[in-house]
Amino acid sequence: MTTTVAGDLLARARGGDKRSIARLLSVVENDEPGAADAMRALYPETGRAQVIGITGPPGGGKSTLVNRLAGAYRESSARIAVVAVDPSSPFSGGAILGDRIRMRDRFLDERLFIRSMASRGHAGGLSRATVRVVNVLDALGVGVVLVETVGVGQEEVDVVRVADTVCLVTVPGLGDDIQAIKAGVLEIADVIVVNKADRPGADETARDLAQMLRLGKGRTAWVPPIVRTSAQTGDGLPELVAAIAKHGAWSEESGERERRRREAARAEVESLLREELVRRLAGRVGADRLDAAVARVADRAIDPYAAVDELLRE
Amino acid sequence: MTTTVAGDLLARARGGDKRSIARLLSVVENDEPGAADAMRALYPETGRAQVIGITGPPGGGKSTLVNRLAGAYRESSARIAVVAVDPSSPFSGGAILGDRIRMRDRFLDERLFIRSMASRGHAGGLSRATVRVVNVLDALGVGVVLVETVGVGQEEVDVVRVADTVCLVTVPGLGDDIQAIKAGVLEIADVIVVNKADRPGADETARDLAQMLRLGKGRTAWVPPIVRTSAQTGDGLPELVAAIAKHGAWSEESGERERRRREAARAEVESLLREELVRRLAGRVGADRLDAAVARVADRAIDPYAAVDELLRE
Repeated sequence: MTTTVAGDLLARARGGDKRSIARLLSVVENDEPGAADAMRALYPETGRAQVIGITGPPGGGKSTLVNRLAGAYRESSARIAVVAVDPSSPFSGGAILGDRIRMRDRFLDERLFIRSMASRGHAGGLSRATVRVVNVLDALGVGVVLVETVGVGQEEVDVVRVADTVCLVTVPGLGDDIQAIKAGVLEIADVIVVNKADRPGADETARDLAQMLRLGKGRTAWVPPIVRTSAQTGDGLPELVAAIAKHGAWSEESGERERRRREAARAEVESLLREELVRRLAGRVGADRLDAAVARVADRAIDPYAAVDELLRE
Repeated sequence: MTTTVAGDLLARARGGDKRSIARLLSVVENDEPGAADAMRALYPETGRAQVIGITGPPGGGKSTLVNRLAGAYRESSARIAVVAVDPSSPFSGGAILGDRIRMRDRFLDERLFIRSMASRGHAGGLSRATVRVVNVLDALGVGVVLVETVGVGQEEVDVVRVADTVCLVTVPGLGDDIQAIKAGVLEIADVIVVNKADRPGADETARDLAQMLRLGKGRTAWVPPIVRTSAQTGDGLPELVAAIAKHGAWSEESGERERRRREAARAEVESLLREELVRRLAGRVGADRLDAAVARVADRAIDPYAAVDELLRE
């Protein structure tokens, strides 16, 4: 991608052309040539979008809920984007079957942009790639970015942590799976959603979650509200939107938003530093010397620490 | 940890003292002071254990199956270890409720060592920490190490990739979840297990998997066998053990085992190189300069790429 091509692509993407936006996102996501130039050009225009993260165990109705939220924000924002991140899928751009059907409907909507991201081939990891994608959408004038993740592993937690407001979506009757939620995910939730709240057990689930929250160490002054929804019927959606807005206002006022953005900036700078150093090192050490050291480590002739000492000694 | 203390700990761990082994694993897992010395001392004795990875979606009965396998290998190996890796759990050493009950029984077995690992605080990532833990167990004379992961995300794939033989455990009637298996996990499987094979739908599941395997690109000459088991009753266990042994023999003969070990050595050396460089860089750049650059990036005064250029220019 030469500067002119990058410039053309940027101009078309800024104009709202979906194919150009998609292409630009691929360049940035995969760190293709031109990615750095594009990010440099776009970076000053970032920091305006509201980024809402949606996470939770599979089967919680997250996709339907995201659909509903996109509809709700469509009223207030000129451009909306959904970034669906699936660490278990190897293909970016595509999506799992259910999503694909859902997306076909949404693609007809001119003001809504949908992007799915997978786990592979991201320099610096999936969460960093997500930050870059969100930054590009932000700079292109998208007012609300909904970042949706599948699953509740550490990778999903890291991805969704980039959001200004994180919604944890759970459902009644998850049983033992509540253990999985407890571990790590609950502490990053700003708003807790009990979806499918018309199902039996919603009261117990809400009560269990409230108790977990009380037991958890108060990380900030913000106590995550528990909102009951039915994504299918739309019940509880206004309350969810209100809860997200309330957290946004608190976050702005308390400095939490600023703190998160600073943390994101630190992660980005440190990650780029690391990549740049590894690039420089590769040149300095040389592929042959590295290969030779690796072979000796594999043969147990030397241990990995000794190999690194040797490689860096000069 | 002084050299003497490290030496004492090593000696006691070599003697088979479980508390010393657990302590040594913590030192190595969390890269505590003394970790490098311990790894240097132990590394020449590694490379003997048979490492078997067990992965697959939740609810597939992996834990029960691992229990059964541990029982089976108990006949042939003097020492066995189970390493249960849960990327969604923040606590190493502990385990989720079900595991804890299971483990209590196993702890009574002198020849079986159990370790659970979580996702946080691992320099170089979870898969690298797993490699270190497996290497220590290997050097301590453990003949068979069963590495069990929860879930099928990229992190789990990376973790289980360290094994000599990877078993993918699935169950009949997963429905759409078969999509998740298809994506990425199938291609690292050496043996495919249809567990709970007494359930309806086992035939269809086995047929679907066989078809997926035919469609997939043949990465090597090895075609993963599909073994039906019932971990509950023990049906199919001898066939599974035989399939793992057959893959082990093929792997040894074809050079696949050597190839994987070389890959693991490369990952370890590159990861250590990266960490060492970042350590050196931190000293060179200085925390103050880094903080200042991060603040300017967060304020959108400069972009992250420009910040890295500035930091490295001198």
